[in-house]
Amino acid sequence: AEEFDPAIHSHRRYNPLTGECVLVSDPRRMKHPWNGQVEPPQSVRLPEHDPNCYLCSGNQRASGEHNGEYEHTKVFPNDYASVLPPPHPLKRAAPPHPLLASEPVVGACDVLIFHPRHDLTLARLSWINIYKRRGRQESIKYVQIFENKGAMMGCSNPHPHGQIWALSHIPTIADTELASMTRYAVNPDVEPSEAPCGPFGRPCLLCEYIHFELRVSKDQGRVVARNEHFAALVPWWAVWPFELLVLPYHRHIPSLAHLTDDEKLSLANVLSQVTKRYDNLFSCSFAYSMGIHQRPLPPREEDIQNADDAENITHLHLHFFPPLLRNASVRKFLVGFELMGESQRDFTPELAAQRLRACSDVHYLDLLD
Amino acid sequence: AEEFDPAIHSHRRYNPLTGECVLVSDPRRMKHPWNGQVEPPQSVRLPEHDPNCYLCSGNQRASGEHNGEYEHTKVFPNDYASVLPPPHPLKRAAPPHPLLASEPVVGACDVLIFHPRHDLTLARLSWINIYKRRGRQESIKYVQIFENKGAMMGCSNPHPHGQIWALSHIPTIADTELASMTRYAVNPDVEPSEAPCGPFGRPCLLCEYIHFELRVSKDQGRVVARNEHFAALVPWWAVWPFELLVLPYHRHIPSLAHLTDDEKLSLANVLSQVTKRYDNLFSCSFAYSMGIHQRPLPPREEDIQNADDAENITHLHLHFFPPLLRNASVRKFLVGFELMGESQRDFTPELAAQRLRACSDVHYLDLLD
Ligand SMILES: O=P(O)(O)O[C@H]1O[C@H](CO)[C@@H](O)[C@H](O)[C@H]1O
Ligand SMILES: O=P(O)(O)O[C@H]1O[C@H](CO)[C@@H](O)[C@H](O)[C@H]1O
Repeated sequence: AEEFDPAIHSHRRYNPLTGECVLVSDPRRMKHPWNGQVEPPQSVRLPEHDPNCYLCSGNQRASGEHNGEYEHTKVFPNDYASVLPPPHPLKRAAPPHPLLASEPVVGACDVLIFHPRHDLTLARLSWINIYKRRGRQESIKYVQIFENKGAMMGCSNPHPHGQIWALSHIPTIADTELASMTRYAVNPDVEPSEAPCGPFGRPCLLCEYIHFELRVSKDQGRVVARNEHFAALVPWWAVWPFELLVLPYHRHIPSLAHLTDDEKLSLANVLSQVTKRYDNLFSCSFAYSMGIHQRPLPPREEDIQNADDAENITHLHLHFFPPLLRNASVRKFLVGFELMGESQRDFTPELAAQRLRACSDVHYLDLLD
Repeated sequence: AEEFDPAIHSHRRYNPLTGECVLVSDPRRMKHPWNGQVEPPQSVRLPEHDPNCYLCSGNQRASGEHNGEYEHTKVFPNDYASVLPPPHPLKRAAPPHPLLASEPVVGACDVLIFHPRHDLTLARLSWINIYKRRGRQESIKYVQIFENKGAMMGCSNPHPHGQIWALSHIPTIADTELASMTRYAVNPDVEPSEAPCGPFGRPCLLCEYIHFELRVSKDQGRVVARNEHFAALVPWWAVWPFELLVLPYHRHIPSLAHLTDDEKLSLANVLSQVTKRYDNLFSCSFAYSMGIHQRPLPPREEDIQNADDAENITHLHLHFFPPLLRNASVRKFLVGFELMGESQRDFTPELAAQRLRACSDVHYLDLLD
């Protein structure tokens, strides 16, 4: 009988962070003709200043507030926040029925403008300060940093910006990942390896995974970019066509607040490599949702080096979920089967990594200049 | 101190089918200006026959095959199937590392064309035959029926059609729902109610839920439409702006194969009510993904009436996940926070139900004729 070959046979892969599976389709599916929605061109070159943009320096926001003049980055509370700080009541009446359960949520939603444009990747690292500031406020249990880039990814304003939602609970997905990492850390069946150790004197789930991909796997087929401290790869369990996972590999790092100055530069460098390759893949401004998963709250100074702090079990990582599938105008829709059954991808993660590796990390527009 | 009020305070609601939460935002979020992607108009009136459509009667498909002339509905295997029938090998080599787990998948993907157009809702019930046929084939463990309607919901061809994916495994979401229903059925803490009984002589999770919404809840605030056997409501835990759950309420019904002729007519009728209200909401052809969850495989004749068959624990239900949020051209994007944290909605399910109830169930185009 024929041997099963994941490059040519449909199969599902397990995501150890979420416990969910992704169906990897028969590769012939990619030949499917597309008569569906076509995305408009994504603008790459924006004007330096747009008088109608409510995020630009010196402009008025939709709420009526003024941005003032700013020169580097700027943080302000979202005028249309999903959640607001206390005193919103955190006590509720009994649910009308046990199947209709709910809990109040308080918190804060901030917007971080990355500016000036050419300093994009370093500017992003202002995340670290907001993570620390919001994470130390009353009632906050998790700080979720994310960025929606591109109109097809629901971004409501093309001015480069990210968001920070601080919440009085740990959201479902982060919570599931934390539970998986904790279960892994105490699982007696896990065999010891050469990977760097986290709390409990053992490699964490992600230290172990990236160690395998970089140093043990024979083909390194999923790695796209790396530098001294960080790697970017299409994970084994990738759902989005060109999904990437970005994480430090040389030591266990629970959060942004644990990074040394050298590591911060490495992170900015790997993000710059990733976003350039993305733009180069289809010669367009590549849309994505990016999110950071890390220690729910920033450590106190004395916890940073504490190898036995169970909260340090999580390993800092960034997810990039980009929708484009075939070219600059045909995206993947995660609908129908994906919403009712399970995630499904049309070609293998290894093929995606191969294509991203083949891209230059010099931006195609810089080559034209 | 102020009382918590879910109509005006941000909170999260628990989905007992999936175990996930949805964050219901502060209602002021809906005032957010939208400078993001605008959807093109959705075509409602299609030509009766399009010579370039690969699903129309008498035409050639992209694969080169001919559809032949058909008069009512038509089923054929998807030319670009995600999974294919055996003999694709189901045995695999050991995984390269325990964190890189996978399993082979076989099965079949069918397309069901609903035709003629005006008979749409009854034509859909050909689902029942495919469910029975595919569900009895070798290696099949689950039959997932779904429909993607509208270009913004990733539909690759506007000719009205649905899909049926039969698989050698139970997909993640259906499996999670089944586990929740089974846990509920054997949970000794659940108090008995007047709801109809399923296996084990007790109401199932969904019989209990719909019983509460229709007969116990004081306001019936989430119910949108109902007839003799079926109800359509915005569930307590709805994620998509105008999400609906459609299910039978008068008795426990595990699958499409359990429906009597009267119940089939009721199902067609409620689907017609739902889709007309949807189109009327924003006077457009309303996009959605629809999916059916039910008993994984069709029962044998002798199992249909077997109240003690544990496989009959599941209760037939249809999910409608429609993306439009504000009007015919501004949709909800479940991105960023939703992909990294948890689902989030911008206004309450009760408000959505109120708006859908206010819509006529006579199609707006029929009023124009
Ligand atoms: O099969 P279709 O309509 O070509 O494709 C659509 O539905 C599929 C199943 O839900 C998805 O995987 C595709 O991304 C979507 O575009
Ligand atoms: O906050 P924005 O950019 O206006 O809105 C975008 O991101 C939010 C958070 O991921 C989503 O809830 C919105 O659906 C999306 O359009």
